[in-house]
Amino acid sequence: MADTKALTTRAADFSAWYNELIARAELADYSPVRGCMVIRPNGYAIWEQMQRALDQMFKDTGHQNAYFPLFIPQSFLAREAEHVEGFAPETAVVTHGGGKELEEPLVVRPTSETIIYSMYAKWIQSYRDLPVLINQWANVVRWEMRTRLFLRTTEFLWQEGHTAHATEAEAEEEARRMLGVYRTFMEEWMAMPVVTGRKTDSERFAGAVRTYSCESLMQDNKALQAGTSHNLGQNFARAFEVTFQTASGDLDHVWNTSWGVSTRLVGALIMTHGDDAGLVTPPRLAQYQVVIVPIYRTDDERATVLEAAERVKRELAGAGVRVHLDARTGMKPGAKYYEWEGRGVPLRLEIGPRDVAAGAVVLVRRTGGKKETLPVEGIAARIPQEMERMQTALLETARARVEAATIRGATKEQFLQHIDGSGGFVYAGFCGRAECEAEIKEQTKATIRVLPDPEYRSPEPPATCMWCGLPSVAEAVWARAY
Amino acid sequence: MADTKALTTRAADFSAWYNELIARAELADYSPVRGCMVIRPNGYAIWEQMQRALDQMFKDTGHQNAYFPLFIPQSFLAREAEHVEGFAPETAVVTHGGGKELEEPLVVRPTSETIIYSMYAKWIQSYRDLPVLINQWANVVRWEMRTRLFLRTTEFLWQEGHTAHATEAEAEEEARRMLGVYRTFMEEWMAMPVVTGRKTDSERFAGAVRTYSCESLMQDNKALQAGTSHNLGQNFARAFEVTFQTASGDLDHVWNTSWGVSTRLVGALIMTHGDDAGLVTPPRLAQYQVVIVPIYRTDDERATVLEAAERVKRELAGAGVRVHLDARTGMKPGAKYYEWEGRGVPLRLEIGPRDVAAGAVVLVRRTGGKKETLPVEGIAARIPQEMERMQTALLETARARVEAATIRGATKEQFLQHIDGSGGFVYAGFCGRAECEAEIKEQTKATIRVLPDPEYRSPEPPATCMWCGLPSVAEAVWARAY
Repeated sequence: MADTKALTTRAADFSAWYNELIARAELADYSPVRGCMVIRPNGYAIWEQMQRALDQMFKDTGHQNAYFPLFIPQSFLAREAEHVEGFAPETAVVTHGGGKELEEPLVVRPTSETIIYSMYAKWIQSYRDLPVLINQWANVVRWEMRTRLFLRTTEFLWQEGHTAHATEAEAEEEARRMLGVYRTFMEEWMAMPVVTGRKTDSERFAGAVRTYSCESLMQDNKALQAGTSHNLGQNFARAFEVTFQTASGDLDHVWNTSWGVSTRLVGALIMTHGDDAGLVTPPRLAQYQVVIVPIYRTDDERATVLEAAERVKRELAGAGVRVHLDARTGMKPGAKYYEWEGRGVPLRLEIGPRDVAAGAVVLVRRTGGKKETLPVEGIAARIPQEMERMQTALLETARARVEAATIRGATKEQFLQHIDGSGGFVYAGFCGRAECEAEIKEQTKATIRVLPDPEYRSPEPPATCMWCGLPSVAEAVWARAY
Repeated sequence: MADTKALTTRAADFSAWYNELIARAELADYSPVRGCMVIRPNGYAIWEQMQRALDQMFKDTGHQNAYFPLFIPQSFLAREAEHVEGFAPETAVVTHGGGKELEEPLVVRPTSETIIYSMYAKWIQSYRDLPVLINQWANVVRWEMRTRLFLRTTEFLWQEGHTAHATEAEAEEEARRMLGVYRTFMEEWMAMPVVTGRKTDSERFAGAVRTYSCESLMQDNKALQAGTSHNLGQNFARAFEVTFQTASGDLDHVWNTSWGVSTRLVGALIMTHGDDAGLVTPPRLAQYQVVIVPIYRTDDERATVLEAAERVKRELAGAGVRVHLDARTGMKPGAKYYEWEGRGVPLRLEIGPRDVAAGAVVLVRRTGGKKETLPVEGIAARIPQEMERMQTALLETARARVEAATIRGATKEQFLQHIDGSGGFVYAGFCGRAECEAEIKEQTKATIRVLPDPEYRSPEPPATCMWCGLPSVAEAVWARAY
């Protein structure tokens, strides 16, 4: 039986709200394996929609999918010095296989640069073989001490793109292109605004030359790193001897990029749009965009109403709408409303005997507003418009929220007040020194999310570092983060 | 550069042919990790088409996708006695995580019954929660000593359905339904005929009450188990205490099924349709169903031909055909033909200046036959017909081949002659005794693939066991197998 107690409100305890929402909507569950989650059908359906959209975007930008082994020889990780330092402490290690101790332990992939570039070394000989543009959908494992459903789990699902190019410029262009793909996906599909930019060296991917990131602000005003794209330079190419003959006959190392997003995005979606009644799913990513709930008392009424509901369903499905008719018996309409609200279905259509007689349905939006009676005629045109409107409105609402939680040109005092107060993004000058960055992190738990891309920067570049007062070398976006 | 040496022929060395075909078509590669393969983009594209078709069929039969942890506590495997006996010897074991030795080692899932049913125990309380119809797309690991690309690898990709039902009859119906889904997929999509039926106890899934299988015959007349569906009875429900309150208020254990197919199907596809020129892909599963190769000498000709080719491409794509225009420069048409043949693209369209002038294209079928000149007009209707025809013809050809390699009502002598000779399926009487089955396997390496379903049985049921002469309890299908 569904739990009918109201969720803890976001205002009262955001973290409790998040966990209760996930349980109530049956999105995920804790597993008996430490740090590993189970993604339940309602949660997985969102991930599937995300996968479908992203996969098409990857293919449209020339990438192909492939699959590389789950296991990586331990010695491979060690070939790139920064990489092993970053990942070795959080690996799961297979020491026994087929009843015997292995000669060399195998690491369960925390990320696949090493195993993939060892294959590229075999496949790439000439500039004619370049670029190699491959993506993989896979599970990865990073041993986590403190886990949270979707946001930080020992095992998670993701995609990792791995490309090889003939020139540094092409690799840089690719890393930037995929950051743009992520931004487009997050804004247009997830209705989640982001700030894009470059990570500082201390937040860089272990082994990368440059890491770019999409950063988003959740409703509790904590930032979430939603997707990253790395220009790896020739670091891994050197470690794995991935060389190619150039057009002029020389031998050179290839230039690599890698980029990834994960099931963490489901958590981001929850914390961007969810409300005190539960999940709110942007229409483009909803498993069911419309749920139809029939209302009746007698068997006669039931037959009439269901027939009309089936007709509406067919018409919407014919227009490409993902629609579900909730014909469950022994459950009151109110209980159904409650359940579908909790699960975040964008639009609900209620049909009762009087609606059937009037050739109408009642439209209820998950995001609120008045109930509206619509004629059944023309519904297949109307509903997609409603969905588009909601999709746009969700992004605008989120943008306004982030804007309201953002301050610019902050002094140290304003920064502290904002970070320790309501929280959010702080745009401010940065001296570029790792010591300064580390000190701020230690004292305030805030980190530089990105050095923002030009379109996000303040009109007036800051002159001094908001913390130490030295000249600013770049504007930085600070926040406490997940 | 592409290797232009002819493949070893199937007749000369089937196994060498298989390996060379995979390398030439760049379907897969050996990885540096023992027993693990890399699925390259050309091979993965076939798996993606398979996934798409199967996933839709699963959803159409009411199933939802979910995701369960990669790791399974070692003690979980042990809870079902047959299950642990079957799988423990071939597991990979994680003993260290996050730099520390684990208190309880974790097994990398060889299959997920145990972890999944431990969750079902939590989710299922009442008959109202049933049936639970969940599928998972995942990687699994079974430590293999002798591996072959796609057919037998330490890690492989698969789907595993896991369902829970209120009654034994429903579980049996589900196990049979999914066997039927597999058969439909294999015949209608893979153009691969199968024999379905029940496995004997010695070939049953470890922990199942009954295992059903789709068995196919490869071109070397060895059988391949292509997909299995298990009625698990209450074995796992008892081991994991998956109970529910029945409608009458009693407490009962649920009835489970599980069913799976894997990337092994890509190997099955290769060995069913491939020829001495390389891969042959049934149109419904081809990444590219049509490749267009432009033919020209001068730059002027190139422009004209490419423009016409683009037009044809757009028209076909508009009709839902997966079409690729191979506009690579610096490569002769012949080299392109050779490459696309090796990769198994069903149809090739050649367009040269004279074709453009005549408003025509030249159609070449991967399965042979005369080149044919077609008018461009109406091509979007014609090509899908060609594909349907090829899809049907591939199944018919394969059926005839299997029929020719099958004998029925065999005596022991005929059985031995067939198995030791050209090989293939032998339908014959079976006494039902495990000792007899084991003796046959030991002496001939042939196994009972299935006790066939009624529609495959011989009109006259065999009276005696072909091996020992005791009365036959069931007709059996014997073969040497992969």
